[in-house]
Amino acid sequence: MKLGKRNRGIVTLITDFGTKGEYSGAMKGAILRVNPRCQIIDITHEIEPQSIRQASWVLEASYPYYPPGTIHVVVADPGVGTARRAIVLQKEGYTFVGPDNGVFTRILARGGRISAHEITQRRFFLTPLSDTFHGRDIFAPAAGHLSLGLEPRLLGPKAEDLTTVEWPIARLSGGTLKGIILWADSFGNLITNVSRKEHGPELKRRRVLIKGRGWRIDQIRRTYGECRPGQPLALFGSSGFLELSVNRGNALNTLGLSPGDPIIIKLL
Amino acid sequence: MKLGKRNRGIVTLITDFGTKGEYSGAMKGAILRVNPRCQIIDITHEIEPQSIRQASWVLEASYPYYPPGTIHVVVADPGVGTARRAIVLQKEGYTFVGPDNGVFTRILARGGRISAHEITQRRFFLTPLSDTFHGRDIFAPAAGHLSLGLEPRLLGPKAEDLTTVEWPIARLSGGTLKGIILWADSFGNLITNVSRKEHGPELKRRRVLIKGRGWRIDQIRRTYGECRPGQPLALFGSSGFLELSVNRGNALNTLGLSPGDPIIIKLL
Amino acid sequence: MKLGKRNRGIVTLITDFGTKGEYSGAMKGAILRVNPRCQIIDITHEIEPQSIRQASWVLEASYPYYPPGTIHVVVADPGVGTARRAIVLQKEGYTFVGPDNGVFTRILARGGRISAHEITQRRFFLTPLSDTFHGRDIFAPAAGHLSLGLEPRLLGPKAEDLTTVEWPIARLSGGTLKGIILWADSFGNLITNVSRKEHGPELKRRRVLIKGRGWRIDQIRRTYGECRPGQPLALFGSSGFLELSVNRGNALNTLGLSPGDPIIIKLL
Repeated sequence: MKLGKRNRGIVTLITDFGTKGEYSGAMKGAILRVNPRCQIIDITHEIEPQSIRQASWVLEASYPYYPPGTIHVVVADPGVGTARRAIVLQKEGYTFVGPDNGVFTRILARGGRISAHEITQRRFFLTPLSDTFHGRDIFAPAAGHLSLGLEPRLLGPKAEDLTTVEWPIARLSGGTLKGIILWADSFGNLITNVSRKEHGPELKRRRVLIKGRGWRIDQIRRTYGECRPGQPLALFGSSGFLELSVNRGNALNTLGLSPGDPIIIKLL
Repeated sequence: MKLGKRNRGIVTLITDFGTKGEYSGAMKGAILRVNPRCQIIDITHEIEPQSIRQASWVLEASYPYYPPGTIHVVVADPGVGTARRAIVLQKEGYTFVGPDNGVFTRILARGGRISAHEITQRRFFLTPLSDTFHGRDIFAPAAGHLSLGLEPRLLGPKAEDLTTVEWPIARLSGGTLKGIILWADSFGNLITNVSRKEHGPELKRRRVLIKGRGWRIDQIRRTYGECRPGQPLALFGSSGFLELSVNRGNALNTLGLSPGDPIIIKLL
Repeated sequence: MKLGKRNRGIVTLITDFGTKGEYSGAMKGAILRVNPRCQIIDITHEIEPQSIRQASWVLEASYPYYPPGTIHVVVADPGVGTARRAIVLQKEGYTFVGPDNGVFTRILARGGRISAHEITQRRFFLTPLSDTFHGRDIFAPAAGHLSLGLEPRLLGPKAEDLTTVEWPIARLSGGTLKGIILWADSFGNLITNVSRKEHGPELKRRRVLIKGRGWRIDQIRRTYGECRPGQPLALFGSSGFLELSVNRGNALNTLGLSPGDPIIIKLL
């Protein structure tokens, strides 16, 4: 990897460390200690504790907007200190650093050429190496060195058979599309696993019916403002997935649905 | 706009995206993709969802502390994807980017020379352009280009008749000053719309009476420490507005008042 | 202090300002106004309001990971506007800026050579100087100037008799170690004041017994994954203190213990 002359190294962070204690701050220090000139960007530190799946999603929904050369560090790491590997991936000009526990599932699922190495070379680790905070002691210094141009192969041997987590797939059968609600965003929009890429054309061509307690939605909208304030609606959101929303309201609080619930869309 | 040679571009963000998902991270990527060298500063991503008024306030209370040349991006955008315009303003050496929905109300209210342009040139937008996330797809790349020195007029035509939202004004009549509580800060201090500039001299010259359930305040203090711990007090806070506070306590939790409530100050 | 040629100035922030309003954003502006090129790093803005002790802890647990030359600004400042001093400390190549109210207790407790100055030179303050927000008006510009290489002695006279807060010490007596729970992290791990440095060898050599309502822990583990999911465990965490944890669970929610509670460890 060669950094463009305008990019002095950008390292993004996606973690489940929360924003209250010292964890994200210690990790940022460990990156800057290696490369004091790199720019550190917080994507989020509020992945639900140990939610590999959510970390994988947020990464997919944010990484492609960054300039090539960016290093994305993802730490949701319930198995820290056990046999799970630390890895570095390269794909589409980006570099990804984190545990090999499935946080890169959505990156791997997109296909395309990928290069992966384990991070085993202890000379790049902090000493003493803790058993519980590899974000600070392994991933951060690795990211710092990568941001200076270090070749991933110098961090360790090639990594094969990368770990992925099961991903819930929306299925269309007999005129009914069955998906689930993945999460709610800060506006209370309910994000589903129904993708525009796979189901968008079908959903836009036909009338639909999505029903809940006291509400029904009968078409896919383009934007929130197409409905009256307080009215429930469905649209394909900015990350390419169907979401249930309430114009100027909060779908999570008012539609009686929560993350993990199924969603049934009848195609009429 | 010419960037000083020491300023490689500072872009600040004020949004209602929250800190949990991918939204602020995707937006930062879209800025850095255009200008990987600019420094991105989070002012806050926790504007109350769709609160144009609060976004406008936080902007006013923070922007003047930044070096001239700073680009402030403000996104609280309930009308995203509808006819509301995207705009760029220039004032006092600063550049402001966001929807024309009133988030710049307090900037416009301060008077002074202002220059405003619409952002309509699609060659600066991300493609595909979403209908629901102009923060990422329009405002972010515009901010990136502006941080590189792009002239606002190249983004679109001059913008006239900028949108403002109604702002509650504190009124003095017959020895009684009537205001409202705008918000509570993280310490529980209750910030009112009574400004030092307009009402400070009067309030400091006379004795006052502010009463609530079980408490009364009879003078305007200078600092929290002038009262005993646990005692309620009023002072002009750091942004120039009167606030109700409890020394080493939390006024929001203990005074029986909330944002939106009226506040009556008798001048004795 | 001389900045290395690769370090264009890093300023970290530890405050109790919260993440919702304008406070941290105004403070960052006031730093950048002096040095637009420095990199500002958020360690946390969510110190519990006015918790000098927690600020001191988070600082200790994060500062040494940063490159020498870094300036750490710590603001938890219940006495703002009163006679408490504003100070700048230098130690181990780092510079620390904040109120002299005990936020540097843990830095001072580590011993070693320290140099301290008051910040009294009003030409470095923002004007008008507020009585309630010295983070923005005094500490931020001081940090900005220090990041440009200003000698601390130019900010004010030498400071003696620095303020510290009482720190709870874990004590071993008659085979029983008595400590307290200091805080819970975002995973619900309960961090105690039992340090590895002082009590680690003893605790690792012997069997232990820690009991609560419906659970018991009988050895010190190395990592979370050594126990079955849902099982309580104790280990020395990444900052060197004993913590109670539940593998893939939340100790705060399930062990019946909270910050401030005593913890009794019997050495068997």
